[in-house]
Amino acid sequence: MREDEVISVLLAAAQPVAGAGVLRGPGDDAAALRPPAGQDLAWTVDDHAEDVHFRAAWGWKAVGRKAAGAALSDLAASGASPVGALLALTLPAGFGRGDLVELGRGFGQKLAEAGCPLVGGNVTRGPRVQLSTSLLGAIPRGGGLWRDGAEAGAALFVSGPLGLARAGLLWLEAGGDRDDPALQPALRALLDPAPRFELGLALRDHSCAVLDLSDGLARDLPRLARACGCAADVELARVPAPTPALAERVGEAPSALAWVGGEDYELLVAGPPALEGLGLTRIGQLSAGAPGEVRGASGEAGYDPFADAPSGSGAPTHE
Amino acid sequence: MREDEVISVLLAAAQPVAGAGVLRGPGDDAAALRPPAGQDLAWTVDDHAEDVHFRAAWGWKAVGRKAAGAALSDLAASGASPVGALLALTLPAGFGRGDLVELGRGFGQKLAEAGCPLVGGNVTRGPRVQLSTSLLGAIPRGGGLWRDGAEAGAALFVSGPLGLARAGLLWLEAGGDRDDPALQPALRALLDPAPRFELGLALRDHSCAVLDLSDGLARDLPRLARACGCAADVELARVPAPTPALAERVGEAPSALAWVGGEDYELLVAGPPALEGLGLTRIGQLSAGAPGEVRGASGEAGYDPFADAPSGSGAPTHE
Repeated sequence: MREDEVISVLLAAAQPVAGAGVLRGPGDDAAALRPPAGQDLAWTVDDHAEDVHFRAAWGWKAVGRKAAGAALSDLAASGASPVGALLALTLPAGFGRGDLVELGRGFGQKLAEAGCPLVGGNVTRGPRVQLSTSLLGAIPRGGGLWRDGAEAGAALFVSGPLGLARAGLLWLEAGGDRDDPALQPALRALLDPAPRFELGLALRDHSCAVLDLSDGLARDLPRLARACGCAADVELARVPAPTPALAERVGEAPSALAWVGGEDYELLVAGPPALEGLGLTRIGQLSAGAPGEVRGASGEAGYDPFADAPSGSGAPTHE
Repeated sequence: MREDEVISVLLAAAQPVAGAGVLRGPGDDAAALRPPAGQDLAWTVDDHAEDVHFRAAWGWKAVGRKAAGAALSDLAASGASPVGALLALTLPAGFGRGDLVELGRGFGQKLAEAGCPLVGGNVTRGPRVQLSTSLLGAIPRGGGLWRDGAEAGAALFVSGPLGLARAGLLWLEAGGDRDDPALQPALRALLDPAPRFELGLALRDHSCAVLDLSDGLARDLPRLARACGCAADVELARVPAPTPALAERVGEAPSALAWVGGEDYELLVAGPPALEGLGLTRIGQLSAGAPGEVRGASGEAGYDPFADAPSGSGAPTHE
């Protein structure tokens, strides 16, 4: 396929939804948008790369959904509503038309479910498949959610079970059966992450600090605490984890999965105790102390792909 | 280097300029912007990948400048003023701190020269270096420049000599001396492309069609003509080309360099004859005929990295 053909196949498969503020979609040097009047913009970019964040064997539709879901999560965690997306896609020489259709379909579906129009992008040749997704969202003036929005004494919460995506990753990397019923919650968490838009919008009414758990609690909790200038006390036993039965299938303790597992895209929130009413689970609090220090938890660090000796079994990383 | 260290080294080297509308820069799940009131937004993404768009041997500072310049050109061609940039950076395992500093410095300098703040990004591990640059720009309401803005009868112009970047590429790929004085205009065009912001702003006052010549006249002229629903008559002898002396050094005819050479990032414009007053060179006109058909020129096509049998000597491609 030639470049122009790649673009037209991809767009036909993605079936972009219309957007009220989209003046010009794909086809020019730039897209043109008219952002909602009187609102601020949240702007983020997220990469999904073959053999770092996914395997070709997982299926291209799943890869498209996963890449879009992970990127959308950054908007959700900012309290933003989607305005539009650009996709910079890298494809190897042998990538087939059928695979491109599946990739475009998965990516487009996931965007459409969030009401997010695909307004442009770029294609490049490369040794492996990579999706770089840039997203714009709208937030009320001064109303966004940021990781430094809380102080010592704030309660710490997470929005759902952690470690499921890591369990799914361990299962697939070990060659486990994709259709095993017991693994479905884990595989869904890994392959089809749900951005927490509703929760993000609800949190805008509260004074709180928020980030999405892309790299795992072990790495993301110190980041939030550091941004708030606080230490964090966490009760690991309170962190919602995969069931012991599921954890046993992948050979790791539930609490270990929940502590180091990345890519769950649940929200980590620090704020008033009343936030529990939003369906959040309380796991500890911010407290006076060395900024970023985490107390009362296992000392195991999350997986960092830039560490000198990365482990092959950890979940990948996202900023 | 670990991920957080990569980000801090890069940001320290890039020295991002301040931006009036930047509420939140790097450090959160998303950046936050307050766009200029009453203006529309132009939004684009451009990729620069090792061994497709550049070689490591060219030096990382030059690579940074080239990647930023190419991306900024899409904004310039849209008649936009820069608002901000996100950089999604892919780095191989062995990439050194000194190289990262050079890359960040070149990228940041080029953005700063255009008054464009770097507000965030992402880093990913990968087999080769790749820079995916997402840019936002501001345009007056309804005032952007697009490739479908002209009709049959419009004069065709280019904003400067074409084929210089290709001459520089051929020179470097053949192992030519980087310091050879005769090659400096060609190497500058290749390694440090100048986005035509001033021209883009001036063109907003006129009814015209515009795109930036990233893939070469042979590929980009049919695109503009097709978007306008016209054929194009081009007088190849009028296209400003490298000097015969320079062309001879790289073993190609000046007109061949000008016709197929990509990455010059000059603007291709279709509009009223009076545009010549903006310093443009007239090369032909749009006319009634099969949309996208080009007449009166050599039949050689531009380089397409997605063609089945790409040539190794052509310039790379950008949307």
